[in-house]
Amino acid sequence: MASVSNKRTTLKKILPKTPSGIAGLDEITEGGLPKGRPTLICGAAGSGKTLFAIEFIVRGALNYKEPGVFMAFEEKSDELAINVASLGFDLEKLQKQNLIKLDHVHIDRSEIEETGEYDLDGLFIRLGHAIDSIGAKRVVLDTIENLFSGLGNETILRAELRRLFGWLKEKGVTAIITGEKGDGILTRQGLEEYVSDCVILLEHRVCNQISTRLLRIIKYRGSIHGTNEYPFLIDEDGISVLPITSLT
Amino acid sequence: MASVSNKRTTLKKILPKTPSGIAGLDEITEGGLPKGRPTLICGAAGSGKTLFAIEFIVRGALNYKEPGVFMAFEEKSDELAINVASLGFDLEKLQKQNLIKLDHVHIDRSEIEETGEYDLDGLFIRLGHAIDSIGAKRVVLDTIENLFSGLGNETILRAELRRLFGWLKEKGVTAIITGEKGDGILTRQGLEEYVSDCVILLEHRVCNQISTRLLRIIKYRGSIHGTNEYPFLIDEDGISVLPITSLT
Amino acid sequence: MASVSNKRTTLKKILPKTPSGIAGLDEITEGGLPKGRPTLICGAAGSGKTLFAIEFIVRGALNYKEPGVFMAFEEKSDELAINVASLGFDLEKLQKQNLIKLDHVHIDRSEIEETGEYDLDGLFIRLGHAIDSIGAKRVVLDTIENLFSGLGNETILRAELRRLFGWLKEKGVTAIITGEKGDGILTRQGLEEYVSDCVILLEHRVCNQISTRLLRIIKYRGSIHGTNEYPFLIDEDGISVLPITSLT
Amino acid sequence: MASVSNKRTTLKKILPKTPSGIAGLDEITEGGLPKGRPTLICGAAGSGKTLFAIEFIVRGALNYKEPGVFMAFEEKSDELAINVASLGFDLEKLQKQNLIKLDHVHIDRSEIEETGEYDLDGLFIRLGHAIDSIGAKRVVLDTIENLFSGLGNETILRAELRRLFGWLKEKGVTAIITGEKGDGILTRQGLEEYVSDCVILLEHRVCNQISTRLLRIIKYRGSIHGTNEYPFLIDEDGISVLPITSLT
Amino acid sequence: MASVSNKRTTLKKILPKTPSGIAGLDEITEGGLPKGRPTLICGAAGSGKTLFAIEFIVRGALNYKEPGVFMAFEEKSDELAINVASLGFDLEKLQKQNLIKLDHVHIDRSEIEETGEYDLDGLFIRLGHAIDSIGAKRVVLDTIENLFSGLGNETILRAELRRLFGWLKEKGVTAIITGEKGDGILTRQGLEEYVSDCVILLEHRVCNQISTRLLRIIKYRGSIHGTNEYPFLIDEDGISVLPITSLT
Amino acid sequence: MASVSNKRTTLKKILPKTPSGIAGLDEITEGGLPKGRPTLICGAAGSGKTLFAIEFIVRGALNYKEPGVFMAFEEKSDELAINVASLGFDLEKLQKQNLIKLDHVHIDRSEIEETGEYDLDGLFIRLGHAIDSIGAKRVVLDTIENLFSGLGNETILRAELRRLFGWLKEKGVTAIITGEKGDGILTRQGLEEYVSDCVILLEHRVCNQISTRLLRIIKYRGSIHGTNEYPFLIDEDGISVLPITSLT
Ligand SMILES: Nc1ncnc2c1ncn2[C@@H]1O[C@H](COP(=O)(O)OP(=O)(O)O)[C@@H](O)[C@H]1O
Ligand SMILES: Nc1ncnc2c1ncn2[C@@H]1O[C@H](COP(=O)(O)OP(=O)(O)O)[C@@H](O)[C@H]1O
Ligand SMILES: Nc1ncnc2c1ncn2[C@@H]1O[C@H](COP(=O)(O)OP(=O)(O)O)[C@@H](O)[C@H]1O
Ligand SMILES: Nc1ncnc2c1ncn2[C@@H]1O[C@H](COP(=O)(O)OP(=O)(O)O)[C@@H](O)[C@H]1O
Ligand SMILES: Nc1ncnc2c1ncn2[C@@H]1O[C@H](COP(=O)(O)OP(=O)(O)O)[C@@H](O)[C@H]1O
Ligand SMILES: Nc1ncnc2c1ncn2[C@@H]1O[C@H](COP(=O)(O)OP(=O)(O)O)[C@@H](O)[C@H]1O
Ligand SMILES: [Mg+2]
Ligand SMILES: [Mg+2]
Ligand SMILES: [Mg+2]
Ligand SMILES: [Mg+2]
Ligand SMILES: [Mg+2]
Ligand SMILES: [Mg+2]
Repeated sequence: MASVSNKRTTLKKILPKTPSGIAGLDEITEGGLPKGRPTLICGAAGSGKTLFAIEFIVRGALNYKEPGVFMAFEEKSDELAINVASLGFDLEKLQKQNLIKLDHVHIDRSEIEETGEYDLDGLFIRLGHAIDSIGAKRVVLDTIENLFSGLGNETILRAELRRLFGWLKEKGVTAIITGEKGDGILTRQGLEEYVSDCVILLEHRVCNQISTRLLRIIKYRGSIHGTNEYPFLIDEDGISVLPITSLT
Repeated sequence: MASVSNKRTTLKKILPKTPSGIAGLDEITEGGLPKGRPTLICGAAGSGKTLFAIEFIVRGALNYKEPGVFMAFEEKSDELAINVASLGFDLEKLQKQNLIKLDHVHIDRSEIEETGEYDLDGLFIRLGHAIDSIGAKRVVLDTIENLFSGLGNETILRAELRRLFGWLKEKGVTAIITGEKGDGILTRQGLEEYVSDCVILLEHRVCNQISTRLLRIIKYRGSIHGTNEYPFLIDEDGISVLPITSLT
Repeated sequence: MASVSNKRTTLKKILPKTPSGIAGLDEITEGGLPKGRPTLICGAAGSGKTLFAIEFIVRGALNYKEPGVFMAFEEKSDELAINVASLGFDLEKLQKQNLIKLDHVHIDRSEIEETGEYDLDGLFIRLGHAIDSIGAKRVVLDTIENLFSGLGNETILRAELRRLFGWLKEKGVTAIITGEKGDGILTRQGLEEYVSDCVILLEHRVCNQISTRLLRIIKYRGSIHGTNEYPFLIDEDGISVLPITSLT
Repeated sequence: MASVSNKRTTLKKILPKTPSGIAGLDEITEGGLPKGRPTLICGAAGSGKTLFAIEFIVRGALNYKEPGVFMAFEEKSDELAINVASLGFDLEKLQKQNLIKLDHVHIDRSEIEETGEYDLDGLFIRLGHAIDSIGAKRVVLDTIENLFSGLGNETILRAELRRLFGWLKEKGVTAIITGEKGDGILTRQGLEEYVSDCVILLEHRVCNQISTRLLRIIKYRGSIHGTNEYPFLIDEDGISVLPITSLT
Repeated sequence: MASVSNKRTTLKKILPKTPSGIAGLDEITEGGLPKGRPTLICGAAGSGKTLFAIEFIVRGALNYKEPGVFMAFEEKSDELAINVASLGFDLEKLQKQNLIKLDHVHIDRSEIEETGEYDLDGLFIRLGHAIDSIGAKRVVLDTIENLFSGLGNETILRAELRRLFGWLKEKGVTAIITGEKGDGILTRQGLEEYVSDCVILLEHRVCNQISTRLLRIIKYRGSIHGTNEYPFLIDEDGISVLPITSLT
Repeated sequence: MASVSNKRTTLKKILPKTPSGIAGLDEITEGGLPKGRPTLICGAAGSGKTLFAIEFIVRGALNYKEPGVFMAFEEKSDELAINVASLGFDLEKLQKQNLIKLDHVHIDRSEIEETGEYDLDGLFIRLGHAIDSIGAKRVVLDTIENLFSGLGNETILRAELRRLFGWLKEKGVTAIITGEKGDGILTRQGLEEYVSDCVILLEHRVCNQISTRLLRIIKYRGSIHGTNEYPFLIDEDGISVLPITSLT
């Protein structure tokens, strides 16, 4: 068994991880998100996807000196800034310090009617500029649903997604893409299977009128990780995941 | 951590809220609905969407000196007035005092057959006039389903919705849009994800032949809020939400 | 709070109600169905929609001196008369006394094939004549499903329904329209949301081989009412609703 | 209350019934199936529809001197005869005595491909001849699914069904039409609502590996009847329904 | 009651049965499968349809001197032989003895693209030759899904199935056709209703991680039979059904 | 009973098996996967399909001296290498030793748009070369969904799959094909029924916030095997199946 080595500590270095900076998550993932690869954050409306993604960018900029680009297809930059202000995140200041870059992409009706679909190449150019302008190491696309909802043909959809994920990998950035779970067009197609190395599901479950927020790692290629459902909180300190069950 | 501040009281000022005037709700939302932004009220037929919206307008006019426009796509103005009379709301008097403005928009068959869809620009002009005529600070559109049910293409639907929500934000009004949950075309598409800062779900559940009305805040961008299901009543004083579970 | 009055007894006069004459129902609805407005009665086959509607017409004619038109799209007038004879309703006699008018509308295949849809204007003329001929105060359309099942386009369907309901309101009659719940095309579209002031659901539930009939008021615009499920019986005295749970 | 009479015994004569001859059923229905009207028997494959229908014809011929036509769209006449032989039914002998008439209608592929649908007028002529040839009072069509499965347009389907049911009523025969419940095209459309005076559901439920057969009257226009689920057996004496719960 | 006889033993001879040779089954069916008629065996992948069918052929050849044709649309003849070898079935030897005949029909892509569907007439010729060559009394088609999956029009599908089943009956062979339950196109259409005299369902249920195989006779025209779910085993002796509940 | 032999040990040799090398699995399958035939591994995203397949290749190369080809339609070769490094698999070294061959097939958008589907013949050539270059005895295709998602016509899809499976059998390789369970296009069509001799399902179930991984052999033509659900682990030693329930 020449090429089988069992020394786990050695091998762990091979799949590099980036600490998310989100309390509790890096513990469950044994080090954070896959470095230089895209992660898919799924969940229904209000489950916390945008907060998760923005905290990933802010913590990266502040705690790990990794500048980050946040590309929003829904919320405008100033709205976003207001929305997370109560969490103690001062997006404007971070922007001025070139630690983060917020970009709101508006997808117009006329644009869709003409071409039938959004131009991915244009997105690459724009995102590339944003990354280069601050030397970004982290990228967020919030949400992928908006980008692709007009694409009817499933095979082309998958090919385009693969192109997007491939482009992000080539850029070497650690990326978060958010998407709707279950009801959305893309995830209904099972896109997480084909295009993502790491898939995390956020849920907001109401049971007997009491609500709980839960996080679960659906898939993490190349990594051992906690596989249970972990409760998490959203409060004035952002997101805190409680790693209250032991690792598998 | 230069730009991270933990002083909650300071930050709370950043996302301004407007008291709804609905008993109990402003407590659960820690201050009311997002000021100058649209809120989506979802629920099945009879769940109380229209009552919720009208009380928001009436309380605004009477308690907070904020004039309001109520644009109805279903009920006629006089019908509406009769319907809420037993709640102690005298819509006619409020109209005469220029504190509120009721507008019933009739969507005609011939109109649809010609153009294939309702003209959003016409709506903007009409709504704009109504807002300006009384200096409205609050706006209701009841219900969005009627407005968009004819639009087949999902991408265009989303773009148009974004246009509507964007227009409302630009106008600076605090708006309520009502929509059907689950069965409706729009909410089936997950529209709440993309176009709304605040989503509230009303439910009328029957269990063992006993009915309960429940309110839940599905999503509230930028705000801490109660996340459980809260019982509410509709009686001669309007809607009263019982904040009987503690905040998360 | 100038225009807010809390005196319930005063306000109750504002939304006029018409006693249905159905035992127990007028108690649950605090006075009957909305006067001069259409009510939708939903339910599966055999749930009792037709019986409910015919009793509304018969009780109106006999107890409240309100002549009534029953427009059937399925059962022929003589069949209908036979079907309710065992309930003690003598439709033929009532017809001769000009207290009620039964009209069976046959929708022909060739008609549909030519025009693609049933002509609503023709219905209005016919129904108008029937109403005028006896000075009807009550109207029943049984069932709406038959009338509209050929209409594919949802937006047009809604516009046409609104036209029908609007026409009935203008006529000032208290109307009952019956429709299938759940499986029917119209109710699947959530029509009850858009076009009806009062929606009542009839159910026939079988549990452990024992069947129960249940009535529930899904929605009653402008009125306080019991919201639970109430058992009801169909026997030789017609329909009797048991108001055995307390009002909300 | 001039035209309301409460004497049940008198009124019962008004909706004439025909005893089915099936053990237990005439008790539950307080006299049998509606005379001169069509009844729909629904149920999955193997639930007993064909047996029910054939016993109705055989018992009519032997016990009530009512000759009957059995029109089968699936089983051939000799197959049918063999299938029910073990129940003690000698179909061949009954045919020779002109008490019953079996007719197997074969729907051919080429026929469908040419015309797109089966010719209902041809069926009327053929069925009319069969009825007249023996002076039939009872008719069975087994099963309706075969007859109409090619019709895509729902409105036309309903119109055609209404035409078929209307034709049967004009003929004055007491008829049974069988159809599949739930999964079939027709019943999925809720056809029982529009075209049938009496609807009976047969079920074959398996629970914890033990099977039970159950019969339920879904709807019976113009008649009081048992509304629970009644167990039934198929053995060498045919079908026996156990009226083990009391009438509503 | 001239033509009603109650002597069960006499009548039992009328619907002739063929012993399947499968342990336990002939007990539940009171004698085996309907002789000279086709039986449908339904079940999901791995439920045992092919094994059931092959054992029917092998037992027929060895125990009852009835030669049999096995027409496979999926497994090749040598694969089939290997698959059942561990059950003690030596298909090759049986073939050489002209007791059975295995025929693998390959449905080619190009063939489908040209004609749009497989040629049933060709199948009849081929199957006819196979039957004649060994004087077969038993026939298996495994599986029907493969044969018809390309047929879109439901009415034509039914007509073709009826043609196939009719052809098999004319040939006088006792046939087994296998098909997928629930998920397959054909059974989704409820084909078992229209074309089969005997329908048997095989299931492989997993409950709390423990699996059980179950057999149930969904329908058996013209025959009394056990109607419960019966456990069965697949081991080195083939299939053994445990008739552990009493007959209905 | 001339050709029926009951000596199980003799017959077992007839369906040759290949040890997978995955701990516990060869015990449950009584010897491993069917030699020279394709096996289908089904499961949702993150269920472990890719790990299962790669371990099959690595263990084959190291433990059984069977070189293997891994053809990936999603993960690139170097990504794959990194992903399994922590399991002690050194793919690069194995590649250099010509014990395994990783091939990443990129399906391009333009390619699809031109031809409408991926060219299976090209795949055969490429896969053939890879097999020949190292004398591979094992082959993996990960995942089949990617390969066929563009094919709309179900009959052609089945024919093509049969062609692929047939080609693999002719090549004499022991193959694993991975596919999505339930949600995927292919498995929704029930492909496992028609094209696979051995089907294994991997599941990742979460119950009360605790997750369990489970393996189940849905189908294994020609072989006795454990049929229950078996828990399995993924840790630094790869996959370990716990055969903790006894064989059927
Ligand atoms: N190197 C590894 N070490 C430990 N666990 C791993 C490793 N790689 C993957 N896993 C675990 O196995 C799961 C399944 O991975 P994978 O085989 O890629 O799933 P699939 O192909 O079914 O989508 C991952 O989500 C992760 O939990
Ligand atoms: N500033 C905040 N302070 C506290 N809670 C917040 C804040 N912003 C959002 N939340 C909570 O987080 C939830 C999720 O928000 P968001 O990340 O926008 O969800 P998603 O992007 O998944 O739709 C909100 O519904 C709210 O309950
Ligand atoms: N004036 C009223 N007094 C008391 N209850 C009312 C009044 N108007 C409406 N309701 C109750 O509120 C319910 C919801 O009404 P509405 O707001 O029109 O629902 P929606 O707009 O969600 O369809 C009604 O079904 C009725 O039960
Ligand atoms: N004359 C009657 N006497 C007693 N019960 C009746 C009478 N007519 C109908 N019923 C009962 O009422 C049920 C409902 O009848 P109907 O009003 O026609 O239902 P729907 O219109 O909802 O299909 C019937 O199925 C039967 O059980
Ligand atoms: N001659 C018979 N003796 C006893 N039971 C029978 C006989 N014929 C049919 N059955 C039973 O009745 C069931 C229903 O048969 P059938 O009436 O043909 O059902 P359907 O027409 O609803 O498909 C059969 O599956 C069988 O269990
Ligand atoms: N030779 C055999 N020995 C023991 N069990 C077998 C043998 N062949 C098949 N089986 C078992 O029977 C199951 C069903 O096989 P099969 O008849 O091919 O199913 P189907 O045709 O319904 O897909 C297999 O999954 C396996 O569990
Ligand atoms: Mg978001
Ligand atoms: Mg409303
Ligand atoms: Mg009715
Ligand atoms: Mg039948
Ligand atoms: Mg098989
Ligand atoms: Mg994978």
